[in-house]
Amino acid sequence: MTDLNALRDQIDALDQQLQDLLNKRADLAHQVAEVKRAEDPEPVFYRPEREAQVLRRIKERNTGPIGAEEMARLFREVMSVCLALEQPMRVAFLGPEGTFTQQAAIKHFGHSVESVPLGAIDEVFREVEAGAVHFGVVPVENSTEGMVNHTLDSFMNSDLKICGEVELRIHHHLLSGPHTRRDKVTRIYSHQQTLAQCRQWLDAHMPAVERIAVSSNAEAARRLRDEWNAMAIAGDMACELYDLEKVQVNIEDRPDNTTRFLIIGRQDTPPSGRDKTSLLVSGKNRPGLLSDLLRPFREKNINLTRLESRPSRIANWSYVFFVDCEGHKEDPGLTEVLEDLDSDGNTIKVLGSYPKAVL
Amino acid sequence: MTDLNALRDQIDALDQQLQDLLNKRADLAHQVAEVKRAEDPEPVFYRPEREAQVLRRIKERNTGPIGAEEMARLFREVMSVCLALEQPMRVAFLGPEGTFTQQAAIKHFGHSVESVPLGAIDEVFREVEAGAVHFGVVPVENSTEGMVNHTLDSFMNSDLKICGEVELRIHHHLLSGPHTRRDKVTRIYSHQQTLAQCRQWLDAHMPAVERIAVSSNAEAARRLRDEWNAMAIAGDMACELYDLEKVQVNIEDRPDNTTRFLIIGRQDTPPSGRDKTSLLVSGKNRPGLLSDLLRPFREKNINLTRLESRPSRIANWSYVFFVDCEGHKEDPGLTEVLEDLDSDGNTIKVLGSYPKAVL
Repeated sequence: MTDLNALRDQIDALDQQLQDLLNKRADLAHQVAEVKRAEDPEPVFYRPEREAQVLRRIKERNTGPIGAEEMARLFREVMSVCLALEQPMRVAFLGPEGTFTQQAAIKHFGHSVESVPLGAIDEVFREVEAGAVHFGVVPVENSTEGMVNHTLDSFMNSDLKICGEVELRIHHHLLSGPHTRRDKVTRIYSHQQTLAQCRQWLDAHMPAVERIAVSSNAEAARRLRDEWNAMAIAGDMACELYDLEKVQVNIEDRPDNTTRFLIIGRQDTPPSGRDKTSLLVSGKNRPGLLSDLLRPFREKNINLTRLESRPSRIANWSYVFFVDCEGHKEDPGLTEVLEDLDSDGNTIKVLGSYPKAVL
Repeated sequence: MTDLNALRDQIDALDQQLQDLLNKRADLAHQVAEVKRAEDPEPVFYRPEREAQVLRRIKERNTGPIGAEEMARLFREVMSVCLALEQPMRVAFLGPEGTFTQQAAIKHFGHSVESVPLGAIDEVFREVEAGAVHFGVVPVENSTEGMVNHTLDSFMNSDLKICGEVELRIHHHLLSGPHTRRDKVTRIYSHQQTLAQCRQWLDAHMPAVERIAVSSNAEAARRLRDEWNAMAIAGDMACELYDLEKVQVNIEDRPDNTTRFLIIGRQDTPPSGRDKTSLLVSGKNRPGLLSDLLRPFREKNINLTRLESRPSRIANWSYVFFVDCEGHKEDPGLTEVLEDLDSDGNTIKVLGSYPKAVL
């Protein structure tokens, strides 16, 4: 017991130091804000590139025992608290409450922001454009909720900038409902993308069971309330929402199954040192268009991380490509690529350069 | 800009110190765990009374600029992270996701716990009793969700201990839906308790409008999806869930409208210095019973913070009283009160002594 008391005294002394440092940090953040206010009548307090740098350094130098991810999450909250003292931030996301997009918003901004759920992706864009919120969070590679296209289409008609990305790891589980007779299961419900992501597991373990694609994983989970010969594949949130039982967890074929979100805002983001750039390139549909678009990237040795084509809404003979590549648009190599693409008669729109996801 | 860079360098240096201290704190917490493991084959790592003491001290000595509440919340997360390194905690709550009860669970335990939503209050009790989770969180004075009685009844049949309480401040808003014609409103939906809590405001501002009590505030909000001549009164979560507009915020008559939750577990909690005790007292229904029950508290000068009577399920001629009072059952005064009540022929069950809500 003396041991315990001595250790607790040490923790208490350490907590006092921690607390002093936290308040001192808020003091310094306040001084930063004062300098910014003196320089700019409409100062920008939230700097995505700066936060990314801080969080990266914290992860890199972390020695444990607290894990690097948990440590970064704690600092995420500390920065969130300090920032809120200067400027209470409002962030719009694709609601309702409890969606992955809200999780992404909190992961990126911490808990000291006011998060505003909106009903549709274009509403999130509008609220950011109107200045009603500081930033918006929208899904962009959301394999299970299938809303990618709305986000891409919204960028075509918007001048908003991408200023960050968030990745969430997504797990899929095989679920049974209150009436499910596990030995009589003849069908499995899920979103088509989810079924595809669990194909190998299903082939190996439930080859004879019919796979039925429904509109969302939540809908699949919901159906189990009434049926006795079905199971569903869905994630934690849907499982919890409909109070289902997990028959087998993490059945996705690729263990690194992630969903990606973008932070949208009104400002450009300076380089953080480890950045990505998203572009929209459109050109007249002709043989070799895609290969022509890709050539400049190859020549400058710039990695493409994603390429997606969408029919243009403006002219039906032309195509629009969404391109994600490594680097910042101010990097010399990428600057030349952009000039190259431009001189080829394509239309280029830089949607934003932003720090790679840290957390 | 030099100013800014100098300040940022200072923040970076400070962050390094913070990070070192955080890891050192986890080290010390680990040593505490080792001592406990050496002393006890089934050690208890989570100590509600110790956490309450730490958080209280932090709030009391806080100098700012970070607010005392925010500072305590940061330390809540730090302790949550340190504890999870020793013992990943599972906490069951009354689901689904997004309820006030989940908010309460996170407020009390921080984010580094696994929270398990369950469909009913007695399921939460059962899971804690079975040892499937370490703790449970149940509403006990939840004026808007009306589930108090289930919790009280569950205590009658359970040996679980109350080991903490959480308070959430609840606001009610007047809401309009997508089709509401604000000049034509003839009815207002809400839960009966909520209508009662906003009575003065309604009398003053909407005396002629019919008030219709529905099963929950969420149900009231839901109805606005289809109706054009109605408004609802509900809180933030329901407002956001159904994407309604706030016509007037915080219309509750008492600005300190809070909802209270209890943490239930299997262990007794030692005194923290500022505690409450919850009792269940039953006696044969006779004239003067209540006054006899209250006498010992009055004599020892012990404050009652709550008194609730419930018909006993065992015998319909007897009554059960739920009593909350200040102090810990090991305090000399309270010990005497318990002995007094006992010798009067009543049945006494101490549901638990636990730290008063800190956060």
